[in-house]
Order: sequence, then structure tokens, then C-alpha cells
Amino acid sequence: MSLSPPPRVMIEPLVRATLLEDLGRAGDLTTDAIVPLDLSVKCVFAARQPGVVAGLDLARLAFILIDPAIAFIVEKEDGSPVAKGGIIARVEGPARGILTAERTALNFLGHLSGIATATASIVAAITGTKAQVVCTRKTTPGLRAIEKYAVRAGGGGNHRFGLDDAVLIKDNHVAIAGSITEALRRARARAGHLVKIEIEVDTLAQLAEALEQKADAVLLDNMSPAMLTEAVKMVAGRAITEASGGITLATAPEIAASGVDLMSAGWLTHSAAVLDIGLDFLE
Amino acid sequence: MSLSPPPRVMIEPLVRATLLEDLGRAGDLTTDAIVPLDLSVKCVFAARQPGVVAGLDLARLAFILIDPAIAFIVEKEDGSPVAKGGIIARVEGPARGILTAERTALNFLGHLSGIATATASIVAAITGTKAQVVCTRKTTPGLRAIEKYAVRAGGGGNHRFGLDDAVLIKDNHVAIAGSITEALRRARARAGHLVKIEIEVDTLAQLAEALEQKADAVLLDNMSPAMLTEAVKMVAGRAITEASGGITLATAPEIAASGVDLMSAGWLTHSAAVLDIGLDFLE
Amino acid sequence: MSLSPPPRVMIEPLVRATLLEDLGRAGDLTTDAIVPLDLSVKCVFAARQPGVVAGLDLARLAFILIDPAIAFIVEKEDGSPVAKGGIIARVEGPARGILTAERTALNFLGHLSGIATATASIVAAITGTKAQVVCTRKTTPGLRAIEKYAVRAGGGGNHRFGLDDAVLIKDNHVAIAGSITEALRRARARAGHLVKIEIEVDTLAQLAEALEQKADAVLLDNMSPAMLTEAVKMVAGRAITEASGGITLATAPEIAASGVDLMSAGWLTHSAAVLDIGLDFLE
Amino acid sequence: MSLSPPPRVMIEPLVRATLLEDLGRAGDLTTDAIVPLDLSVKCVFAARQPGVVAGLDLARLAFILIDPAIAFIVEKEDGSPVAKGGIIARVEGPARGILTAERTALNFLGHLSGIATATASIVAAITGTKAQVVCTRKTTPGLRAIEKYAVRAGGGGNHRFGLDDAVLIKDNHVAIAGSITEALRRARARAGHLVKIEIEVDTLAQLAEALEQKADAVLLDNMSPAMLTEAVKMVAGRAITEASGGITLATAPEIAASGVDLMSAGWLTHSAAVLDIGLDFLE
Amino acid sequence: MSLSPPPRVMIEPLVRATLLEDLGRAGDLTTDAIVPLDLSVKCVFAARQPGVVAGLDLARLAFILIDPAIAFIVEKEDGSPVAKGGIIARVEGPARGILTAERTALNFLGHLSGIATATASIVAAITGTKAQVVCTRKTTPGLRAIEKYAVRAGGGGNHRFGLDDAVLIKDNHVAIAGSITEALRRARARAGHLVKIEIEVDTLAQLAEALEQKADAVLLDNMSPAMLTEAVKMVAGRAITEASGGITLATAPEIAASGVDLMSAGWLTHSAAVLDIGLDFLE
Amino acid sequence: MSLSPPPRVMIEPLVRATLLEDLGRAGDLTTDAIVPLDLSVKCVFAARQPGVVAGLDLARLAFILIDPAIAFIVEKEDGSPVAKGGIIARVEGPARGILTAERTALNFLGHLSGIATATASIVAAITGTKAQVVCTRKTTPGLRAIEKYAVRAGGGGNHRFGLDDAVLIKDNHVAIAGSITEALRRARARAGHLVKIEIEVDTLAQLAEALEQKADAVLLDNMSPAMLTEAVKMVAGRAITEASGGITLATAPEIAASGVDLMSAGWLTHSAAVLDIGLDFLE
Repeated sequence: MSLSPPPRVMIEPLVRATLLEDLGRAGDLTTDAIVPLDLSVKCVFAARQPGVVAGLDLARLAFILIDPAIAFIVEKEDGSPVAKGGIIARVEGPARGILTAERTALNFLGHLSGIATATASIVAAITGTKAQVVCTRKTTPGLRAIEKYAVRAGGGGNHRFGLDDAVLIKDNHVAIAGSITEALRRARARAGHLVKIEIEVDTLAQLAEALEQKADAVLLDNMSPAMLTEAVKMVAGRAITEASGGITLATAPEIAASGVDLMSAGWLTHSAAVLDIGLDFLE
Repeated sequence: MSLSPPPRVMIEPLVRATLLEDLGRAGDLTTDAIVPLDLSVKCVFAARQPGVVAGLDLARLAFILIDPAIAFIVEKEDGSPVAKGGIIARVEGPARGILTAERTALNFLGHLSGIATATASIVAAITGTKAQVVCTRKTTPGLRAIEKYAVRAGGGGNHRFGLDDAVLIKDNHVAIAGSITEALRRARARAGHLVKIEIEVDTLAQLAEALEQKADAVLLDNMSPAMLTEAVKMVAGRAITEASGGITLATAPEIAASGVDLMSAGWLTHSAAVLDIGLDFLE
Repeated sequence: MSLSPPPRVMIEPLVRATLLEDLGRAGDLTTDAIVPLDLSVKCVFAARQPGVVAGLDLARLAFILIDPAIAFIVEKEDGSPVAKGGIIARVEGPARGILTAERTALNFLGHLSGIATATASIVAAITGTKAQVVCTRKTTPGLRAIEKYAVRAGGGGNHRFGLDDAVLIKDNHVAIAGSITEALRRARARAGHLVKIEIEVDTLAQLAEALEQKADAVLLDNMSPAMLTEAVKMVAGRAITEASGGITLATAPEIAASGVDLMSAGWLTHSAAVLDIGLDFLE
Repeated sequence: MSLSPPPRVMIEPLVRATLLEDLGRAGDLTTDAIVPLDLSVKCVFAARQPGVVAGLDLARLAFILIDPAIAFIVEKEDGSPVAKGGIIARVEGPARGILTAERTALNFLGHLSGIATATASIVAAITGTKAQVVCTRKTTPGLRAIEKYAVRAGGGGNHRFGLDDAVLIKDNHVAIAGSITEALRRARARAGHLVKIEIEVDTLAQLAEALEQKADAVLLDNMSPAMLTEAVKMVAGRAITEASGGITLATAPEIAASGVDLMSAGWLTHSAAVLDIGLDFLE
Repeated sequence: MSLSPPPRVMIEPLVRATLLEDLGRAGDLTTDAIVPLDLSVKCVFAARQPGVVAGLDLARLAFILIDPAIAFIVEKEDGSPVAKGGIIARVEGPARGILTAERTALNFLGHLSGIATATASIVAAITGTKAQVVCTRKTTPGLRAIEKYAVRAGGGGNHRFGLDDAVLIKDNHVAIAGSITEALRRARARAGHLVKIEIEVDTLAQLAEALEQKADAVLLDNMSPAMLTEAVKMVAGRAITEASGGITLATAPEIAASGVDLMSAGWLTHSAAVLDIGLDFLE
Repeated sequence: MSLSPPPRVMIEPLVRATLLEDLGRAGDLTTDAIVPLDLSVKCVFAARQPGVVAGLDLARLAFILIDPAIAFIVEKEDGSPVAKGGIIARVEGPARGILTAERTALNFLGHLSGIATATASIVAAITGTKAQVVCTRKTTPGLRAIEKYAVRAGGGGNHRFGLDDAVLIKDNHVAIAGSITEALRRARARAGHLVKIEIEVDTLAQLAEALEQKADAVLLDNMSPAMLTEAVKMVAGRAITEASGGITLATAPEIAASGVDLMSAGWLTHSAAVLDIGLDFLE
């Protein structure tokens, strides 16, 4: 399967800003004081725990923006599983630049690999079902594009990227509109022809109303597996079905077994722990 | 105790960028389609689980940058504990702006409160010891200043903010310098008079050498509680002692009991789960 | 119908940059030299030709970013028709600020009103048909969001806002994939559940293939009205139909009569002449 | 004649921003889904109508910022005429990058070539006269520097680039000052020694007053060809003469025949249609 | 004479960036630790030495961007002389914000007042002559617009603001062109009608050639007062004359007595010492 | 001793902005008009007066950002003394780019070398004492990082880089806290373990109090050499001692002789005259 990382023009501003956040005004005091200018080293990014890799382009960029003489050789592509102790990439070149960029590279790599790993774990838990795991807009400020990429690296899919690439009518919108029907009518009048419309429903009555109004997708919020199964049967392929709320490693299989198309989980992006990765210096 | 949030000039660029990340090019399609321009609402940020609050200024700014007519009334200041169901803040005003800014506000508030809550939990676990919990440079790209603030809101302290505000000599630096002594000598020659120097030591022999060279602080890396106790005794107040590695809720009390001054934990900033907070609309 | 202008947080950076582009390094030499600091004036934006207004928020912002003491009173809302000589807005306050911001305000207002006017003219030409006029990605660099808004102000609709909010498979993509079927298959595998897929077809055979593969929308490129009519019949509501190529005021009625859902025209955004508007000083 | 395009440091921020405007958060969904990573293609920019080329550096930059492996070979330099079907440039390399950057490159190239073409047409219409065609500050927000460059590519000249590189006293300034004489006096007192002063005059009496005060240039606003001829005679070389208002392809020859030095036309930059250019893929 | 400070839209980005440069990532540690949130103070900016004031708008902005509750009351307008001990402005409000912004405000105020004071001193030295003192492009990186403003505040004038608002042909350009005549011919062919052309001449023969070619201004480089006198006589009003090189307080009167129109001095902007100003807290 | 210049990622934004400040909207009118595109030249940066060099990386970047074909060969590294007439660097390549970037390169090089030279002069004046010369936060807006680097190039040291990398308690803070003791107590409670605390004292009584509270450093403000000598004796190595106020070339030796560790001087960064450097064209 092809996984397309964002082009450099999209990630370079973020990596530059993150390097500057760490360098501050005085730069790397420790390395400048201790490490000779002409020392070269070889080192490897090694996984301290098993997981799935994501973020190599950002890590590479951290090094070459500090010193273009640093070589960054990928051993495990984004999206690949890595075992405990597995080598993810090799970094070779001027020791100063490598030490200065190390933390920035690791912060990107650990964070994004953590998201990919969390995604992959839940994807694995529902193997054999038709459900796809997707993330939400509950992302870390400033990192939405790359966090959504990390979810794809982990085998998941993406929900909306923002407020503007699809309509998602939530309970509060429905309450303001007065009904599912009216909310969908207003949305349809405004949305462009390439904009899909999804609506949150909490009951089967609401679901019936949404289907009647030909919603493209229905978000089945916090329903039990039994209710989800009934909802999927009721939809009968007329809309995309998304289960939302309470999706964990433990609950995922049962929810997926309901036959829903999608299972969305905000914690993939907002609460996944980093994947523990270290930079080991070789002799 | 006074907790000073970063001034608006520091956080405004971040909040603006995060709003634009969500608005994209077409803005909030759903809200624009459904919600009348003149509708006002009242709602509350309520905690779905107990925790400690942080990030209210960023949440407020998300709303007023979208619509200055929105009022944001704080009920629990940053640093305050909140119970499950507790109300953190009230938001009143134009419904459109509130719905459009909601996710951005929640992403900041949940992320930072998650860090504050994690910090507070470990701070509580070592009550009665002299140890302070501190975070590291293992922060989320772009968010270092506010994540470090969230740690303070949770009762913790801050380690270095970057590569440039203190010297921290790690094992790789020592290896390159050849010895603890030489590494400290080089650092001392370069560091300004207001820059403290900390050095990582893995053995008591290294510790002795670091003390000999009058390091300001020693990072006692991955030592057992017993070894930490011995190290603290050996230091005898001549340097600040920091335990690092493997600090969890479970291990913290025993480590703190060793008498170290500081316990640093990267996971406070890189792996804390969000605090689950919701925005509830009132009738 | 409600027309939602982009919130200030979206347009302010653009207006600031445009003011700075005009002010350069030395500011408004002429006004600073000639106009007394304490002189206030009243003036009106008047249309020199009939048209449809768009861009008032940007014009207002140009004035108040130069001097918040300037009042900007709208007489014709965005989306309103204005006759030759009609007054669009009143501007009152310090003469210096008004003269300095005048050209920036007019450049936004004229450009966007020109697009709205062009859109409205073609919308009027196809009244009574079911077709909607939409713009494309052929926009002026940097102005996509506000140009697409101007099209809406003129009564048109919006196609994709960028490469990332929908899939649009063009002839070159089809050629690379090898077939309509394969192109749609690959797109389906990659696109999220809220992403629609449109595909360009040049023949009825291609159209049949696209329908077979359940494309959400089909772009009927450069087809004659007769062929469009046949295509629409063949689609029979199974996909959204978009006519593209050669849409002018003259050809629009015949094309719309074919029964297509959409008619897209790049010139609305890339080649519409400005609406001639002047700022007249009142005694 | 040498035509100097703006150096890369001036245009790179604009091209980067325009690429990001199109890529959004998710990048080029269509190309990423369909086009193999290792596919290379050759294609040409071909003119669909005759015109004058401008903007090649911006088009090239769009490609190489997406993928530096793309080669961009110019066939017709900026400022060159191109026939219908004429090849402007060749683009070779990775298909993905070429397809992703195509629209951004075309938007720059079409817009600027449109301005160059419009300029060239009016320049051609007054061949044999001494008049030069110049543009104004009625430019598209954000694009002033490159639009003014496109006018030069079309054989025209540039008026002021902003409010700060020359003094241009308009009718409203004169009204505020009270007289042509007082306006020029105030301007002279403020302007630096390398700043020229031009003043708008509507009557021959005003012209006489401006000449008396030694204005560097006079803007003869909306005068008939006969009146322009008289004005030029009256000036007798003592100031630069600029005809303004109502300059079209039809009126230009008669106006130029009046002997004015300059003819300024806002529509060159604010209302020129794009030059229709396509990117054709070769076998 | 009226002195127009740059509008806020021009200086705000600079003041914001300078505040952030000082606040870094952790903000004002000292003030946050020591000063109560609710303490208000009154203080005054007082001159520690006599001089001329410039930069009040930047100082004010530093305070109100940190805390809009701070009041900044001007006692001596930009361009005013201030005696030793004289009060320039009063600052009242929250003590925290005042202490945090103090250094940024003083850095702007001292630097710009230093330039204004240096300018005023040399202006005073040539009172009674027709010469005007002007600055050059030898400015501090990033501060050109405000440094040129400070020169005007000191009673001086401005030369070019950049490479693009006038032509200045230097000796190296002449050498490349081959002659004064050819250099001026090339410049004339390229320069717009509102762009003046100045040329550096080192000898009277070159001067004659420049006059023959009707240069707008001549830069008389490093000529003795006697030679300048001769040059001015030779020019006889046909061009603006500028003496350059070696203009100091000591040499200025003799040089001005030569009758030149302008005397340019790079040190006004690149080497003027700050004006010593302090912020005194009142009881 | 090794002097580490800031990495390119830190200085590139500043150099880009400064080039754009000079290029404005129309670029280098003079060079574009006169200098052939294909002309190459060789030239040298030569010192017009003796001094110490700083800023070569910024100068180099100015050239290669304008034209990467320009070669910049360093003859005197940053921190090296250069005699009058000494060659600092060679610049070779396209004449256009060299002439366009010349002033920007010189403005950086002259300003920073001026600071390095001033620093070196005072360092030389106190040779043989233990005192180190350090700069302050009285820097030019936007240039703090590179000005502090220039001080190091001149042999000096750096004080705080901002409000956030150390605590410096000034007289106003003490007044607000009520006493030296209370101020230090509050600071200690807030400061991280790697943050040093310095406090200003005006009397020996205050000094005693500060020592009692174990301040890391004491700023001995405006004390006479005799009083400084007494203060140093009193401190007896328990804190770092810094003399501040009235440090000039003339007073420095006597002050240094008091035995203080540090002598801080704001004028190194805010009032040092540029080092006069010229760019001479060869052949």
C-alpha cells in the first residue's frame, strides 16, 4: 500500500519552528562547549519497545536543517512495524549537528510513531471485520496534518481535517436547527457538490430521519454494540455508518462486529503515549 | 502560590494558527449553514473526570479571536482541582462563534489540563518528601512554553526550557569529552556566569568526579532507590540531585524517599492523556 | 439565504500584508505631507457601474487597521446588487487614515465585487434551470478563500477549495492509471469516508465506466449541449453532473438546458474585470 | 533590452504560500492515490492563444519547491511573444510532483502572462508615438511586485510601487490643501531629494499653476485628446506629462498622438484576463 | 512642521517580535516571582542627558501589548528637545506589565532618540546654511523604516529607503558601465518616470559629464570644502548636490558653507550612541 | 578557544528579512539597469580601520541568498583581529548579485564587528585581572542573539539572554518585595533548579543580606573602586560579583583591579560604532 508523506514544503516550516523553539537565543550551549567541530559520529535510532514507525521525514529534516552534511538513512519506512531493539534509521555525520538536532528529531519521531502504534494496535484488534479505524479533529494544536498522517501510517483512516472539508452536524447543531430534517436541509443548501454531510444521531428514530434525508454518513454516538448492530441493519448500505464514543482496545472487537463502516477514536491523536525510541551512538 | 500564565503576546500567535488550522479555507461549513447569526447561547466547560485545570487563557483567546462578543467566565482557575462534573468555565454569547471555536478551545484545554493532572498525581504521590517533580525537553513540537506552564499548574517544576538556558551534559557528551572532568571543564569555560551546569552520572565514581569538579547539579540516571540513597548521601548538599528514568506513579514514592531534590519525567509532557472535558449547552 | 463572510481571524493577515505592501518603508508620503492630522471627512463608496457587492469586511478592515477611529457604515451588504451611482458604504473619520487606506480597500472591494458581478451575470442567464454555477481552483495566488467567497456572494457555488478536500481525477490521472476503472479504484482505496470523488470523462463510454464504478460526480469536459443532454440522461441521477469548458454568458443557457447539475467556469475567478467603484468625498 | 526578474528571495515566500494554499492539510489526494512514486513524465506548457509570456521563475519555483528533481526548461523567455500552440517551457521529472504543482504554476503563469499580453497589445497600438504605457497601484492584493514586473515584460513601464516611493497629489489632496500651489508647497517641504512629485490636474488653469510650482510630473486626468494636445504644448517639456482615464485599445492611439509622455491604465493589472496556457503531457 | 510617525500596522510586528525576543519561552521570571498581580505603580521616563526624543509610539506599544491596562502619557513629543532630567513620558498601571516591558520600551526609545539627538546636533552645527543633513542605507538590519523616521525627528532628511525607490549610481557601477555617460544612459532607459537618478562623481570632469547627461542629483564623494565649492558653482542649480564622506560635527560647518544642498552621513544611523534614558518609579 | 556561530536555521530568517527590507518591491534598480547579467567580478572586504571581525556567516548568507553562485572565502575568522587595510573575506561571482547584496552584508558585518571591536578593546584594557567583560539586555531590537555572539567574538561573555533564562532582581523589584531577603525568598520559590539568581545591591548592608540569603550572584551597582574592593572582600567567593555602571575604557582597569568577577557594560551592544569595512572591487 502506498503511504504518501506530506511534501517538504508542508513540513519544513514546522520543523524549523521546532528547532528554533529548542535553540532559543543562545543555541546548544552544551554541545558547542564540549564537542569538537570536526568530530564525526555514527548512530542509530533504535526502538526501545515494539511499535509502528511514523515521522521519518520530519526527523531527517531536523538534522539536515541543522547541518546538511548529516546523512539520514532509513531502515524502517513509515508505516513499518519495528521490534524492540529494532533499528529505525542510521544517522551519520558531524557530531555537533547530530547532538543539537537529536531531541527535536526524537520529539517528532516518538510522538508520531506513538500515534501510528496506537492506531495499529486497534486496527489489529478488529482484523477480519469490515470496520476502519479513523481519527478525529481532537488533535494537538499545530500538528493536525502530521498527526493524521501518522494515523494513516498505522493503518487507520482520516475523518475530517477541519471545519471546512466536510459537514458534520453534531447534537448541538441539531438542537439549534430544531430537527434532524431541518439541520440536513440547511446543510444541503450550503454545502458544495463535493462536500459530504454526516450527522450525529443518538437514537434509531433520529437515524431513520437522517436516512430519510439522505445523509451521506451517520455518526452513531455512544451506542451499545447491540444498538449499533440494529442501526447498521436499518441503514442497509444507504449511508456510511460511524461508531463513536468509548472505542478502546477492549471494546473495539465487539463494536466492529456490529458491522459499522467506521470507528472513530479521538485518543489516537490526543492521548497516545510516545513510542520510546532512543538515539544510540556507535563506536 | 502565584501561577503566572504566559502573557497574551506569547500565546496569541499559537491560538491564531490553531484556529486557522481548523478553519482551513472555507471556514466552519456546518455552523455557517445551520446556526442563525443572531442566536446567543450559554454553555459550560465541564470536567468528565476529576483533574487539574490548565490552559484557560488559551481557551478564552480561541473564543474571542473568533468573536470578541463572546464572554468567557472562569470558575476554576488554572492549577485548581476539578471534580467529575465540575464546571471549569462559562461561555456565553453568539452561538456561531462558540461552536466554531469550541474544538480549538477544547484541544488546548484538554491537552494542558491532562499534563497538569498527570503532574498533580505524581506530586501527590510523593507528598511529605522534599522531592520536586519536573518535566524535560521531551515536549510536543511547538508547545514547549505552554506545556511547561501546565506542569507548573499541576504543582511541578520546570527543567531546562531549551538547549540554551542551562548546560546539561549527557552521557554522549561525556564520552566525546573523554571524562566527566574534561566535560565539566569545557562547559565551565563556555557557560556564562548565570548558566548552571548539570551533568549526567551513571555510577558513584562518576558522581564523585562531578562533585570534585563542582557541578551545580547531577542527573542520577536510572539508578535504583538504594543507589540513589547512597548518591544523595555522597552529595551531601554540594549539588542539586535529580533522579531520572523510570519515574512512574508506582515508583515515585520509593525514589522520592531516597532524598533526591528532583525527579524528572518526560511522560508528563509527551504521553499524558488529555483530561476529558466537554462543552455543555444550557437550555 | 445567509452568506457567511470569513471570520476576521482568516482575513486579517491578508489585509495587514496588503496595507504593508502599499505603505512600503516610508508610508504615505503624499497624505502625511498635505493632510492635517485633525481633519475629519465623510465619503462614500459609490459604484461607477451596476454590479454585485463583495468584500466589505476586507475594505472595513483596511480602514480600521490604519486608524480605529474610522467608521465604516455598510449600505449594501455583500451579495446585494448595486446600481450605477449606488452607494455601497459610508466612511467617516480622520482624513489621513481614509486617504492612506483608500487604495487597499478599493483593490479588495473592486476585485471581489468584480467576481461577484461576473458570477451573478451568468447565474441570471440560466435562471429557471436546475444548474448551479461554480468556480474552480483557477484562482489568484493567495486569494482563494476570499475569491471563492465572492463567487458565493454572486450566487454561485464552490468547487474544491484545494487539492485536499475532494478527489478530482483528471484526464492525465486516468491516463496514468490506465483506465477510468483503475483510477477510481485507487482513489477509493485512499480517500476518507467524507471525501467525494469526481472524475473527468470525455466520452459516453468513459461515463458509463465511471457510473459503473459509482463515482460521486462526473466532470463532462468540453461536451456539446447535445452530448451533455445525452450524458445527463445516461447518468439518471446516479452521480452529480458537471459541465466544464467553454462556459460563457452566451453558451450558458444552452448548456444549462442540458440538465446538468453544475457548470464550472475558471474565468469567474481568474479573468473577471474589477467592478468600478470610487470613493467620493462629500462636502 | 534586459528584463530583470525579481530575485528568488523576493518570490519564494509567495510561491510557498500559494502551494500551501492549494495543498491544504491533506495534500494532493488524487495524485497520491493514483500516481506511482517512480513514474516520470515529460510535458510542455503550451499557449492556447497568442500572447506574451511572464512569470516563468514563479512557475519553475512551484515545481522545484514540490520536488527538486523536476527539470524546468524555458523555451520562451519572459517578455517573448508566443503564438497559439507555441511551447513556452518543458517540464520533466517525477509525475507526482508535476501534477501536484501544475495548478499553482499555471495560476502564476496565466495571470502574469495575461498582464504582459494586455500591456503588449496597447504598446503595439501606439507604436511610433513617444508615449509609454504604465500601470498603477490598482493591483491585486499581495501581487504588486510581480504584476508590475509583468507589465515590464509586456513592454510597459511602472508608475509608483506604493505610497512611499513618490508623491502623487490627487484631487482630494488638492481640495484639502486648498490649492495646487499649497499642495505642492507642502509636498516639497516633506519629500526627500530623490522623491519626485506628480500632481493631478483637471484643467489648464490648474496645469499652469502646477508648472509654475515646478511639479516634476502632471497627471492629466480624463482630458480629451484635444485638451491633452493643448496641455502638452503648454507644458513644453517642463514636466513629465501623463494621460490618465479612459485608456483603452481603441482610444490609445488618439491619446498617444497628443504627445503625452505616459499613458496609465489600471486595467492592465486589475482586469486583464489570464493568458490561456495548458500543460500537455507528451507520450 | 508636522512629523508623521509610522502607523501602528507598520511598527506592531517589530514591537511584538522584540517583546518575544526578551520573554523567550518562560517569560519574566523575576517579575512573576516577586511582583504581586494587583500592584499598580506610576513611573516616568526621564532623560539622563540632554537630547531629542524619538520612538514614543514604539515604547507605548511595548507596554500595551503586554498589558492594555497600562497608560502611557507623552510629555515630550517625538522631535522635541529634552533637558537632562527632563520627563519624556509617564507610565502608570499594573507593575508587572510595566516591569516586563520596560527594557523593550527603553531599547527602542534609547536607540531612536540617540539617532534623533545625533542628527539634531549636526543640524544645529550648520544652522544658517542651506544644507540639509540626510541619512543613508547604512542602517541597522530590520530597523530601516524607524531609524529613518528618527532622523526626521532630529530635523534631518532621508535619502533612499532601499535599492528600489531611486537610482544611485556608485563608482563600481560607473566602472562597469564604462563611463558616467553610459551609466546614466542605461539607468534612464530602465527607471520609471517618477524615479530620480543620482550619480557619484569623484572629479569635476565626471561632474561635467553627469551634468551633461542631466542627472537629477550628484553625489560629490569625499571632496574637500574647496572642491565642493567649485562643484556647486559648476552645477549652478542644474542638479541637486550632495556632499558625502567625512561629515562630522567638526567638518560639517565648512562643508555646508560650500553651498551643497545635502550632506549625507551614515553614522547617524549606524553609529549613534543611545540617548541615556531611565524609567524612574515614583512613590 | 572555540567560538560557535549560530546555526543557519537561526540566522537565515533575519538575513532574508534584511535583504527584503533593502530590495523593497522593485528590487535593485541601479544594478539591474547597468550591470550585465553575465559579468563576474572579484572583490574583497577590507578593513578601513583596525578591529575584530564578527558576522561573517551573516554576510555570506546575504550573498548566497541573492545568488548561490557567489563564492565567499573567509580570510579572517570571526574573533580574529584585523589590521587597517586587512582583508577579511573574498567575494567572487556574478557582479549583479554581489552589488545587490553588498549593503546588507556590510550592515551586518560592520555592526557586529563594531561590537566585537569595542568588546576586545575593553578586554585588552583589563588583561591580567580576573574580571570578564559581559554585555547586557540593552541590545538592538531583533538582534539580541547575534549581538551577544559578537560580544563573544570580541572576547567577552554574555549575561542573561532574556527575561527568562535567569533571575535578575533589580532595585525596583527589591522595593516592591520590601527587602533583599523577601525578594530572594520569592525568587527562590519560583525559579527552577537550573536557574541562577542574581540581585542588585547598592550598599554593603544590602550585600550582606544577599549573601545571607545565598544569592548566586550580586550586581554591585555604581560602586566606587574602593567600595567594590571592600565588597569583593566581603563576598569572599560566596557569590559571583558583577560590577555595573560607568564601565568605560578609562575606568575599566581600576574597577577590574577590585577583584570583581564580572564587569557589565550596556554600551557594547547599544552604542558601539560600526567597524568601518569596505568592499573593494579588484581588477
